[in-house]
Amino acid sequence: MRMVDVINHKRNGSALTKAELHAFVSGYTDGTIPDYQASALLMAIFFNGMTDEEQSELAMQMLNSGDQLNLSSIPGIKVDKHSTGGVGDKTSIPLAPMVAALGIPVPMISGRGLGHTGGTLDKLEAIPGFQVELTEEAFKKQVADIKVAIIGATGNVAPADKKIYALRDVTDTVDSIPLIAGSIMSKKIASGTDALVLDVKTGTGAFMKTEEEAASLAKALVSIGQNVGLECMALISDMNQPLGNMIGNALEIQESIDILRGKGPDDITDLVLTLGSQMVVLAHQAESLGEARAKLEAVIENGVALAKFKELITAQGGDARVVDDPTLLPQAAYQIELPAKTSGVVAKLTADEIGVAAMLLGGGRQAKSDEIDYAVGIALHKKIGDPVQTGESLLTIYANQPDVSAIKDLLYDNIEVARQATPPVLIHQIIK
Amino acid sequence: MRMVDVINHKRNGSALTKAELHAFVSGYTDGTIPDYQASALLMAIFFNGMTDEEQSELAMQMLNSGDQLNLSSIPGIKVDKHSTGGVGDKTSIPLAPMVAALGIPVPMISGRGLGHTGGTLDKLEAIPGFQVELTEEAFKKQVADIKVAIIGATGNVAPADKKIYALRDVTDTVDSIPLIAGSIMSKKIASGTDALVLDVKTGTGAFMKTEEEAASLAKALVSIGQNVGLECMALISDMNQPLGNMIGNALEIQESIDILRGKGPDDITDLVLTLGSQMVVLAHQAESLGEARAKLEAVIENGVALAKFKELITAQGGDARVVDDPTLLPQAAYQIELPAKTSGVVAKLTADEIGVAAMLLGGGRQAKSDEIDYAVGIALHKKIGDPVQTGESLLTIYANQPDVSAIKDLLYDNIEVARQATPPVLIHQIIK
Repeated sequence: MRMVDVINHKRNGSALTKAELHAFVSGYTDGTIPDYQASALLMAIFFNGMTDEEQSELAMQMLNSGDQLNLSSIPGIKVDKHSTGGVGDKTSIPLAPMVAALGIPVPMISGRGLGHTGGTLDKLEAIPGFQVELTEEAFKKQVADIKVAIIGATGNVAPADKKIYALRDVTDTVDSIPLIAGSIMSKKIASGTDALVLDVKTGTGAFMKTEEEAASLAKALVSIGQNVGLECMALISDMNQPLGNMIGNALEIQESIDILRGKGPDDITDLVLTLGSQMVVLAHQAESLGEARAKLEAVIENGVALAKFKELITAQGGDARVVDDPTLLPQAAYQIELPAKTSGVVAKLTADEIGVAAMLLGGGRQAKSDEIDYAVGIALHKKIGDPVQTGESLLTIYANQPDVSAIKDLLYDNIEVARQATPPVLIHQIIK
Repeated sequence: MRMVDVINHKRNGSALTKAELHAFVSGYTDGTIPDYQASALLMAIFFNGMTDEEQSELAMQMLNSGDQLNLSSIPGIKVDKHSTGGVGDKTSIPLAPMVAALGIPVPMISGRGLGHTGGTLDKLEAIPGFQVELTEEAFKKQVADIKVAIIGATGNVAPADKKIYALRDVTDTVDSIPLIAGSIMSKKIASGTDALVLDVKTGTGAFMKTEEEAASLAKALVSIGQNVGLECMALISDMNQPLGNMIGNALEIQESIDILRGKGPDDITDLVLTLGSQMVVLAHQAESLGEARAKLEAVIENGVALAKFKELITAQGGDARVVDDPTLLPQAAYQIELPAKTSGVVAKLTADEIGVAAMLLGGGRQAKSDEIDYAVGIALHKKIGDPVQTGESLLTIYANQPDVSAIKDLLYDNIEVARQATPPVLIHQIIK
């Protein structure tokens, strides 16, 4: 099979066959297909899209290019959650122990942050001693023993995806639904979970700016998952403003603890319970979403969820005393308020730019190799729809530098106080 | 300027600016832009096309990547003709001396054949001693002295086009109108002509299979030419059956001599006179196409055109005695007839496959490095619309091998004899 013919078929709008996708993915991974032919095909896929069958097959071929975890030795229906990423999105951290507190195995494979978005692994590493790199055996043993572990990818997962992703980045073929979906699902299927809840973000802080794009991606993800026998569903949730009040690694651990105590902000608590209910239903531990939600509320109420989080921290080498004494988390040297310049109602809190502000404080990475300052970040005191008086603090900047004037300017530019505002709807759609 | 942003603009449907096209063409030519980004851009151009201004600017940037001939020292309006290539298309060979016989300078830069199409330079090299590689100075002197020269490209013409063309070939981005047009026109503008008649072929033996595609290409070519101040027009002519009766290098020289004697087949004679009339008008040597055609018919009638061809052959080192004694041209060892299997009217003579048959006899190249056998080829005795009796010869195969059974099968497969047939119209459209 000649690669130029594969390009031709996609360019002319045909669906690629399993054999053609195999030839592309395996040939590109082993280096026999050059970058310039791969990039031409990626651009043709950008323009002509893929059928459901094609994108499932693409994900499977990328999956088969590398290692897969086999979790079949762990009893029970294993459930994971994946989010497409946003600002202030620490849902995984309270969610995993909360679901595990019901006896459901949660073998969670998470990622790191880049640009304006944070990453679960970085946030967990704000806890002194916490290890996110476990061997496959240690990971399986921990999930079997305490029902939960949160780690980075192990082994050589989907090397085809790594190579294709690097090429997409420099050829402007990143925002193609079948390519995004294949990239996400090849890695999630490789993690060996039985069921998967997907949280697809939409809004200014999300990669999918419109609900329509988010719905297309969600449908592609669910379709790929179901085609390979994964129990799978997706929520489309809002990312027009940051999720919860805290942005920054140690600050988000604090807020996660608040959520597990039942004292978290309304929006993120609702999202955690909504995602968790879906996970409990997919794990066949409740007949209805209402029953599932009640069970989760009970383990918050009785402290079992918080105890499970301490157990998780201890199992992965972290200092669980942070749960009761958050001052043991890295602390910023400066706390600087941002007073409102006028009275009114908060009408805009542009999520991605507030994420950039937290990154510029040192809390995120501009490049993959950048070091992270776990202590810094932003604590929002007002969300969209909240009234505010002139001079009242909109937020607190946690910094390790005394001069944050440029960051203040950036924040002022991205917070709007108006006469009136409508808070965004948190959960836009459910896709099964 | 980042190449990924240039790709993004084209991918999203914007017109690229002069600065962006310059960055792409110069960066790709000097190797600072990698193949994989160039191929992604080429595929985006395939899908989103280019405006008239963009494709002119692309051609100019490719032109400026290399050398240009300066013919301003030669007096008069210099006129060239370019054809997009076909089977049996030897028009340049009688046309150049015929127009030069009227005192019009014809500095013709021609090409070689590949695949099913022949090339003017290969055909001329069938004449013993004929040299198609002249220095720039010798080329200019010959055009000044005798008004005509036919040579291959001199110097480093449009190196950007060479590199881009090679990449298009392996990334399935060949058939994009702005890319084809830029490739053709960058080279023709570099040849230093003042006026240009374009012969865009359409039909089974042409790259542009439909008249609509051919018209799009013709408009793009004329638009680019006119934008840079070239006097420029295009014909769309038929390539559903071979042009004239002869296919093969020495055979096509023989037919060219017949045309110059006024004894050529009707179709190619008409095309030569039509193209020639346009050239004469563009050179301001006639007020109307009718007047131009009468002048050309006169130089055929009085032998001046044929004398000019002899002068051309002699000037480029060839043996001009071939004009009066075609047996001095390379001769094939075998002449094999192809008898009609049924009586009727010829309904189909698939041009490209008959071109392939001539190539397989050794008259053309499958790869650029292949050697050519000048003697071999095909002489058609019947064209579409001609009546034929069972057993009557459809054509003669000129071969240097006794066994041509596979080629006979190929020819039979591509010649259809039916009850009735309509000969194709030769000139489909004129585009100015």
